[in-house]
Amino acid sequence: MHAYRSHTCADLTAANVGETVRLSGWVHRVRDHGGVLFIDLRDHYGVTQVLCDGDSAAFSALEKVRSEWCIRIDGTVKARDPELVNPKLPTGEIEVYVRELEVLGAAEELPLMVFGDQEYPEETRLRYRYLDLRREVMQRNMALRSDVVASMRRRMWDQGFREYQTPIITASSPEGARDFLVPSRLHPGKFYALPQAPQQFKQLIMVSGFDKYFQIAPCFRDEDPRADRSPTDFYQLDLEMSFVTQQDVFDTIQPVLTGIFEEFGGGRKVDQEWPQISYKDAALWYGTDKPDLRNPIKMQVVSEHFRGSGFAIFAKLLEQDGTEIRAIPAPGGGSRKFCDRMNAFAQKEGLPGMGYIFWRDQGEGMEAAGPLAKNIGPERTEAIRQQLGLGVGDAAFFLGGKPKAFEKVAGKARDVIGEELGLTEKDRFAFAWIVDFPIYEKDEETGEIDFEHNPFSMPQGGMEALQGDPLEVKGYQYDLACNGYELVSGAIRNHKPEIMLKAFELAGYGEDEVKSRFGALFNAFHYGAPPHGGCAAGIDRIVMLLADEANIREVMMFPMNQRAEDLMMQAPSDPTSDQLMELGLRVIPQE
Amino acid sequence: MHAYRSHTCADLTAANVGETVRLSGWVHRVRDHGGVLFIDLRDHYGVTQVLCDGDSAAFSALEKVRSEWCIRIDGTVKARDPELVNPKLPTGEIEVYVRELEVLGAAEELPLMVFGDQEYPEETRLRYRYLDLRREVMQRNMALRSDVVASMRRRMWDQGFREYQTPIITASSPEGARDFLVPSRLHPGKFYALPQAPQQFKQLIMVSGFDKYFQIAPCFRDEDPRADRSPTDFYQLDLEMSFVTQQDVFDTIQPVLTGIFEEFGGGRKVDQEWPQISYKDAALWYGTDKPDLRNPIKMQVVSEHFRGSGFAIFAKLLEQDGTEIRAIPAPGGGSRKFCDRMNAFAQKEGLPGMGYIFWRDQGEGMEAAGPLAKNIGPERTEAIRQQLGLGVGDAAFFLGGKPKAFEKVAGKARDVIGEELGLTEKDRFAFAWIVDFPIYEKDEETGEIDFEHNPFSMPQGGMEALQGDPLEVKGYQYDLACNGYELVSGAIRNHKPEIMLKAFELAGYGEDEVKSRFGALFNAFHYGAPPHGGCAAGIDRIVMLLADEANIREVMMFPMNQRAEDLMMQAPSDPTSDQLMELGLRVIPQE
Repeated sequence: MHAYRSHTCADLTAANVGETVRLSGWVHRVRDHGGVLFIDLRDHYGVTQVLCDGDSAAFSALEKVRSEWCIRIDGTVKARDPELVNPKLPTGEIEVYVRELEVLGAAEELPLMVFGDQEYPEETRLRYRYLDLRREVMQRNMALRSDVVASMRRRMWDQGFREYQTPIITASSPEGARDFLVPSRLHPGKFYALPQAPQQFKQLIMVSGFDKYFQIAPCFRDEDPRADRSPTDFYQLDLEMSFVTQQDVFDTIQPVLTGIFEEFGGGRKVDQEWPQISYKDAALWYGTDKPDLRNPIKMQVVSEHFRGSGFAIFAKLLEQDGTEIRAIPAPGGGSRKFCDRMNAFAQKEGLPGMGYIFWRDQGEGMEAAGPLAKNIGPERTEAIRQQLGLGVGDAAFFLGGKPKAFEKVAGKARDVIGEELGLTEKDRFAFAWIVDFPIYEKDEETGEIDFEHNPFSMPQGGMEALQGDPLEVKGYQYDLACNGYELVSGAIRNHKPEIMLKAFELAGYGEDEVKSRFGALFNAFHYGAPPHGGCAAGIDRIVMLLADEANIREVMMFPMNQRAEDLMMQAPSDPTSDQLMELGLRVIPQE
Repeated sequence: MHAYRSHTCADLTAANVGETVRLSGWVHRVRDHGGVLFIDLRDHYGVTQVLCDGDSAAFSALEKVRSEWCIRIDGTVKARDPELVNPKLPTGEIEVYVRELEVLGAAEELPLMVFGDQEYPEETRLRYRYLDLRREVMQRNMALRSDVVASMRRRMWDQGFREYQTPIITASSPEGARDFLVPSRLHPGKFYALPQAPQQFKQLIMVSGFDKYFQIAPCFRDEDPRADRSPTDFYQLDLEMSFVTQQDVFDTIQPVLTGIFEEFGGGRKVDQEWPQISYKDAALWYGTDKPDLRNPIKMQVVSEHFRGSGFAIFAKLLEQDGTEIRAIPAPGGGSRKFCDRMNAFAQKEGLPGMGYIFWRDQGEGMEAAGPLAKNIGPERTEAIRQQLGLGVGDAAFFLGGKPKAFEKVAGKARDVIGEELGLTEKDRFAFAWIVDFPIYEKDEETGEIDFEHNPFSMPQGGMEALQGDPLEVKGYQYDLACNGYELVSGAIRNHKPEIMLKAFELAGYGEDEVKSRFGALFNAFHYGAPPHGGCAAGIDRIVMLLADEANIREVMMFPMNQRAEDLMMQAPSDPTSDQLMELGLRVIPQE
């Protein structure tokens, strides 16, 4: 017989009754039923009930084992009495009568119980991660993550992509976040950097003629911690293709992601139609470039109904340039109580409030209620109702000003309204491509033009488009939104050195700066660069959505805490003076 | 029609004749045949011949294109004249008559030609890696590497393993090499380290109950450069299993590797029998723990034939403790010329020389020639011949002294002899497990005992074995040798904290040091650790063997040069003073 097991703890059924078996695993739970010891023996695959009484030579040894001891038992498979069969357990038909016991690894008193649902502080969970990970939900989450990544790979291979590994110890990649630096020993005083993303490398792979690249790529950003973000590294499904248009990239990644969400979504509905919504429309309709389309609410511009109206605040506002009034329709929200609550929500978010109208049944007909309706009068009110397609029992909320100033709150209000009124469909994954991102944005304070997204995207209209107003230039640049999260981001790249220079010039960067910051790419583009584009999908976030977890640490094996410390491994730590000397570094004493 | 291509450059055959097609790719070669331009248009998939004459509107534009320009052409597929069909090319039956041309990316004068076999200095190749990678052999090597890794993953999944990613920014892992450090911004003056291997993490994954782990794992070691080693990072197929014996690990990895070598070995023979050879026997028979078993030569101890013999050097040597005479049989090496050359080889390697005997036909019988034979006389000579199973036309070489002093040269001599006499079989992959490594070794100078390999292995015989002579303790520790390279290394781990402490104590490490160096693992072993073991296979080396390349840089996409510099990306580079300030570091000015 094998030294440790003839079966796993998930294997045995009634078919094995009478067999002598060997099992290894952890003591999940011990119960003493008057001289008969019952142990739930657990391994990665399942749980088997083993038992022992005074007739067994193993009894006195088995009496000593405690939760989470790792043991090996030999015994005989017995059928359970019919009334004791557990249909929920694959091994629920049998139990194993223990004849021999070997303690493989004893356990000290546990700082964290594996059995049961007790909550522990995160610091405890991370310090004793090897215990925390034994819990059922963590075993499931880690397996899910592994299976999702494996499925992504299979799906990419099936589409003719090859995975190529790009360097991890490399040069600084100015992508907007801070680099992690790695001091060089062979070149003291000089530093490598860990890549924020393999962006330049994947573009260089295209220039190298490889056509279809993907990578499950670790990305490193020295960012201040947040619940849905690792403070050190995260993983992307990164892909790039040559000789493609934006639509080709969409057609490539959509089946991969629908496939993943269908395979691992646990039966939740996965939208097959992925609308393409312009950045501008997304802001108008949803107040965000990552809309949650499970929520059917779509905002509308209703400025004309308020221009010159008796509602002085909006009427005056509209006299200023660039202002607008937008409505958030709220079907089913037609009660003063609800409307007041939403108004309070807007105030909490820093706005003066949200005006509202709601429509109620008034015996002989419909009545529009709320102070706003009174101010603008019945005709305008009715026109608004008709534009928004609302009726009795519904409400509408109004926000006015420069869109940039209220859009974000409007988007949040839309979320809350959809949620509270039960409009937002649960158990569904709703996707939308957000397209036509502007290449540039104006810094409100300095008035200077800078890149809105990343500087590698091809402007729509190419060189010609860069001759006009920079703020009007759109890029072949896109995000994928799913349930309110940004899952994917990508672009068709700017592969023409002269357009690249011009694009940077508009953002205030000279040729020297382009060469020093993106030299490899800029040089490579002078040697026959193909048109290319791609995208990157956030793996951690996809797994979080699938596992229904709100914290990235629930889907990572050994995460850092929010202070970027690994409590189990004791990182970061003090270097030795030899190490510092070899690297040519000195630590500046902190106050 | 698609913006860039209706077909790839490998797609078109006689079946497409008459079709209007669109192709994109690089100008591989231009030939001007008196007013007709022929261009080999190349993409990742293949080459298609396109042509153009003065009748085409594209002619004058096409005349301007040069090697490595990236272009798009529209044209008509034509059958080649039967005598011009190229059966070596999948597209050899056709050519495309160009009607329209678009230059997608022009190329400046090339520092490195893609077409042809010209050799370039490595610095040029690495600086212009995107051109170097366009060459056929590099496209093939990169695709091979990608396909090998993909196949490894499939084979591991098929065996029920899941891939789990372990941290890259983590704590120092004292594995014998230097760590790369990463300064922490949130904790100025403290450093993370990049993992030399995921050793501790994979063991912690076992303690966490995951049973079967693998990872295509990046490993980081700040080592001084060597041709077959990257100066920064390399990849391993890393695996670990719970509740296993050494044989289980062998049975897991052997089908993965035989599968890989059969799939990608290009028909070279792949040994199915993998002998298990003890470390001691390997040293004796082959002079190395990574023997090349394609070479049938096996050394033997022949001390007794020299003890008290007339060959005074060996006879005297044998009077000292721990000395031995070993013979390298050389079937077919029976000529003075060959024997002298081998003797000179040994001298070049720093030994006084290798004695030899060779047997030749002497008319009325066999004659043993060489000074050694004369010194020891015919009887002893004949006894040696019989022991070694040699005859006319063969030779034997002799080395004497303390084995440690000559084993390495003996191993090299065995390689050279096998090679020169044509005994070493080409086109074959021969594997052997080297087992029973000693846990400890004695430092010849200090006389102190230290770990021979890594300190995580379980001693054979457990705690009991550690009570005796440390130098006699063998570990459940193994390497896989293939064609003279170490491909895999692994062990059954020491998962019992008390045995771990004792093992470290014998090597001179106290409990405090164990706790500070391997704290996470040592702590984890106190909470129900399962017996576990595994191994790691060097991916770069496997791909090198399959691609028949001697330099690791031929199988890596973007390697560093031997001074650990990335010439294309310009790494490492100077940090900004802001970066240093945030990290709380100062660079010590170098002399």
